[in-house]
Amino acid sequence: MAENAAIAEITKKVEEVILEYHGQPLSKNALKKLEKEKLKKERAEKDALARAAQAAAKASATVDYSKDFYGKQAINQSADRPGRKHERLTDISASRAGEKVWIRARVQTSRPTGNKMCFFQFRQSSATIQGLVVFDETAISKQMVKFAQNIPSESIVLVEGIIAKPLEPVKSCTVQDAEITISQLFVTSEAQGRLPFNLEDASRPEAEFEREDAQFSKVSLHTRLENRVFDFRTITNQAIFRVQAGVCKLFRDFLDSKGFMEIHTPKIIGAASEGGANVFKVKYFDTDAYLAQSPQFYKQMVVCGDFERVYEVGSVFRAENSFTHRHMTEFMGLDLEMAFEEHYHEILDVFDELFVYIFKGLEEKYAAELEIVHRQYPFEKFQYLPKTLRLEYKDAVALLRENGVEMGDFDDLSTETERKLGQLVKEKYHTDFFMLDKFPLAVRPFYTMPDPKNPGYSNSYDFFMRGEEILSGAQRIHDAELLIKRAKEHDVDPESVKHYVDAFRMGAPPHGGGGIGLERVIFFYLNLGNIRRVSMFPRDPKRLFP
Amino acid sequence: MAENAAIAEITKKVEEVILEYHGQPLSKNALKKLEKEKLKKERAEKDALARAAQAAAKASATVDYSKDFYGKQAINQSADRPGRKHERLTDISASRAGEKVWIRARVQTSRPTGNKMCFFQFRQSSATIQGLVVFDETAISKQMVKFAQNIPSESIVLVEGIIAKPLEPVKSCTVQDAEITISQLFVTSEAQGRLPFNLEDASRPEAEFEREDAQFSKVSLHTRLENRVFDFRTITNQAIFRVQAGVCKLFRDFLDSKGFMEIHTPKIIGAASEGGANVFKVKYFDTDAYLAQSPQFYKQMVVCGDFERVYEVGSVFRAENSFTHRHMTEFMGLDLEMAFEEHYHEILDVFDELFVYIFKGLEEKYAAELEIVHRQYPFEKFQYLPKTLRLEYKDAVALLRENGVEMGDFDDLSTETERKLGQLVKEKYHTDFFMLDKFPLAVRPFYTMPDPKNPGYSNSYDFFMRGEEILSGAQRIHDAELLIKRAKEHDVDPESVKHYVDAFRMGAPPHGGGGIGLERVIFFYLNLGNIRRVSMFPRDPKRLFP
Repeated sequence: MAENAAIAEITKKVEEVILEYHGQPLSKNALKKLEKEKLKKERAEKDALARAAQAAAKASATVDYSKDFYGKQAINQSADRPGRKHERLTDISASRAGEKVWIRARVQTSRPTGNKMCFFQFRQSSATIQGLVVFDETAISKQMVKFAQNIPSESIVLVEGIIAKPLEPVKSCTVQDAEITISQLFVTSEAQGRLPFNLEDASRPEAEFEREDAQFSKVSLHTRLENRVFDFRTITNQAIFRVQAGVCKLFRDFLDSKGFMEIHTPKIIGAASEGGANVFKVKYFDTDAYLAQSPQFYKQMVVCGDFERVYEVGSVFRAENSFTHRHMTEFMGLDLEMAFEEHYHEILDVFDELFVYIFKGLEEKYAAELEIVHRQYPFEKFQYLPKTLRLEYKDAVALLRENGVEMGDFDDLSTETERKLGQLVKEKYHTDFFMLDKFPLAVRPFYTMPDPKNPGYSNSYDFFMRGEEILSGAQRIHDAELLIKRAKEHDVDPESVKHYVDAFRMGAPPHGGGGIGLERVIFFYLNLGNIRRVSMFPRDPKRLFP
Repeated sequence: MAENAAIAEITKKVEEVILEYHGQPLSKNALKKLEKEKLKKERAEKDALARAAQAAAKASATVDYSKDFYGKQAINQSADRPGRKHERLTDISASRAGEKVWIRARVQTSRPTGNKMCFFQFRQSSATIQGLVVFDETAISKQMVKFAQNIPSESIVLVEGIIAKPLEPVKSCTVQDAEITISQLFVTSEAQGRLPFNLEDASRPEAEFEREDAQFSKVSLHTRLENRVFDFRTITNQAIFRVQAGVCKLFRDFLDSKGFMEIHTPKIIGAASEGGANVFKVKYFDTDAYLAQSPQFYKQMVVCGDFERVYEVGSVFRAENSFTHRHMTEFMGLDLEMAFEEHYHEILDVFDELFVYIFKGLEEKYAAELEIVHRQYPFEKFQYLPKTLRLEYKDAVALLRENGVEMGDFDDLSTETERKLGQLVKEKYHTDFFMLDKFPLAVRPFYTMPDPKNPGYSNSYDFFMRGEEILSGAQRIHDAELLIKRAKEHDVDPESVKHYVDAFRMGAPPHGGGGIGLERVIFFYLNLGNIRRVSMFPRDPKRLFP
């Protein structure tokens, strides 16, 4: 409007000037000269006119009526606390349509439509919602739309908007019956540079990569671990680590209800406890110390100190130079140890109830998370029995032999044989979880209680999930003299474990327990293929960062 | 009876023989000789008689009608599982008088009375009950009484007996309205040799040692720690470590209810994270690694990975060569970290509720344990406010100056000044717990967010219990460029913390948190004088065993 008015006015002035000149009789030359000057002036005036028009247009354009409603925020240094309520996406639904809300979320994706519109997917943890910025002549300027379209994915934004009911359900979001019509949009923290990979690709089911028309690239485990903070943001990882926290919680809740007490034992120890192999050495002031390979000795000592039922959730360190799918140099041990009254099968009874409680709890309380993981890494539903199968080692050996595995009565199980046994047990007993009891004495640590009736065997057990070991345990020797004898037979110098042996001299109850590898439980339950997927920052001989 | 009969019979036979000799006339010599022989025979017969009597007496004595009802058991190797119910002492009371029960317990003390009786105090954890073995002619033999009298204290026994109502309450036991009349008594595990100290002495209130007539010796902390398994058995330690487990449980329960998720971060790290001082070095295959001094960087990275509220209960390692009452080289950190919406005081709000929840929970759920600890280590009831006092650093400095402490605005607090401040706050505000906010920037780590309004200060805080620091925390810098700038100002090479800094480049929410020293909370709450009392196996520069 302003532009047209200016042009009209200038044109009028030029016509007046021409009329004035024409009112005088002039020579041809003068006329020519005048004509030239007139043209020159006209040209100059036209240029001025155009410049003015341009300036006017520019001035008009910078009058941005939305300018207070979008922009980049300064670094939040907690200068103010306006006390606005920020909504969780999970609390938003169509029933609240028309309500004005504030939301802080990440920009998962943004999709510009021309220069008048921009669609967003906003994300909080694993919840997503659609948002849109639409140009209009009074509230949302084109400048604001342009700003919105240029926000990099993964930036954190603060949004004010109205909850609206979309015409059709938003299938690509977790909130499907509502979207946000944006009225204010601020960038709280902008993502810089190129993102290490595409989050959507990183959450795709493996099967999609095998399609012939696949247009996206698979994200390797290495790339994920190198960019772990970013990788955590995939919907699948959000679920996996919630399941992990769930297993710890279920473990503790059950044991608390059974009279167990939580303990914390030292991780820096003065002597390499269990023989000295696979132990990390620490420089400890003027001497050497070691990292505990398990809380074994300490939890037993605590039981001898009259805390009769104890558990610990703690770090465990193993200096094993191996790179398998199920080994890490550091992992979380869920350990328990308890005095029993008559028979170590009382411990198996506790473990039986514990695991059934954990498996049930996962199904009941973490169904949504399991479903999310399942989408990316499809796994067969984990089968277990209400009363866990207890198989004796000798019977397992018989079963394996019947199925073509050659092994001696007292041979240990290889990873391969364990898997085979898992398959056979599943076929015969329809369970992915079982206890293998009465291991050969020779393949167990020196402090394992020998079976009193069957020479060569011991009161010890491993538990298996999908054919892989997740727990090892036993009745322990609680008699100092027998312990010393067995230590010597294993070439362990009793002096090197004196504090431990002495714990049994002042009256010790019969006792036993076991250690569960937390990551293994989740890894095998979800059948994830590699244990590193269930450790936030996994450690192996080559991985110390991040 | 049998002895007298035998003597009478032999006497009769001797008389008959003498009579036979006297029937013949004999010479004096013959008579003398005969007399001699007679005497000799008499003597021999008397000897035989005595021997027979002895043998008879002995034979009679070994007919032990109680022999199946007492004795030492073989090492329990889980040979059988009779399925007997073993009672907990806490379930026994006068209302069950007349019931026959089995109990496994420790012999806390035994008191023989003549050769016909023996009193016991049996113990399970911190519960005690009186038991007695009383000779009778059909059921409890003198041999059984003697066996009972010789059982060493701290042995573990298996007892069958009848619940009885004592004439007077048994004041020395926790079960006062009932005792056990023993019918069977077996030693499951015998305590060997001399006990390292007297458990009763080890549980005495400090004040008793100051009495002039004190007949017992004080057990030093050193002796306790050297004999920690035995020391655990004192009623006070049984209570202390239950309180410790309680604090962890309350911590987690509260945070779970507020949408926090439990995480586990690595303890072996590739670079000495926070500057490199006070860090333990680990030999890690062909390279060096370090033990994490806190989960600081990792928990922040996890928050940047969209787990917006996280906590960790884990081991923390500090290579500080110090021997104070409140330092250890290894302790348990209760860490939390959270994204906030507007202002870091949202974190203080969470902490405020958390601590009040813990203090209340201790009072409500651990009253018995607190009472037990209080008996040995009397402490003033811990005072706290329903809404925790938040004091700004500059106001604390002013308060200290008003009370004669000379210090600059930006000086750090010494241990002594902290204590003084604790006293002054207690006098003025009647609380043993408060938050000190807005520390000088210069005394905090490089990643602390500066106060935007008051140069020289920062958005950081410490919490104090009874005038000693138990938590340190802050808003963290969530902008990579500002972080790099601050790192350089602290002489930290940004390259050495690259993974950490990079976590903030892909959109990072404003966030903060804090780390609580678990042992400190319990130590100061119970006012125990030395932090080693609340660590099961404390570690300091000179202590690596047990």
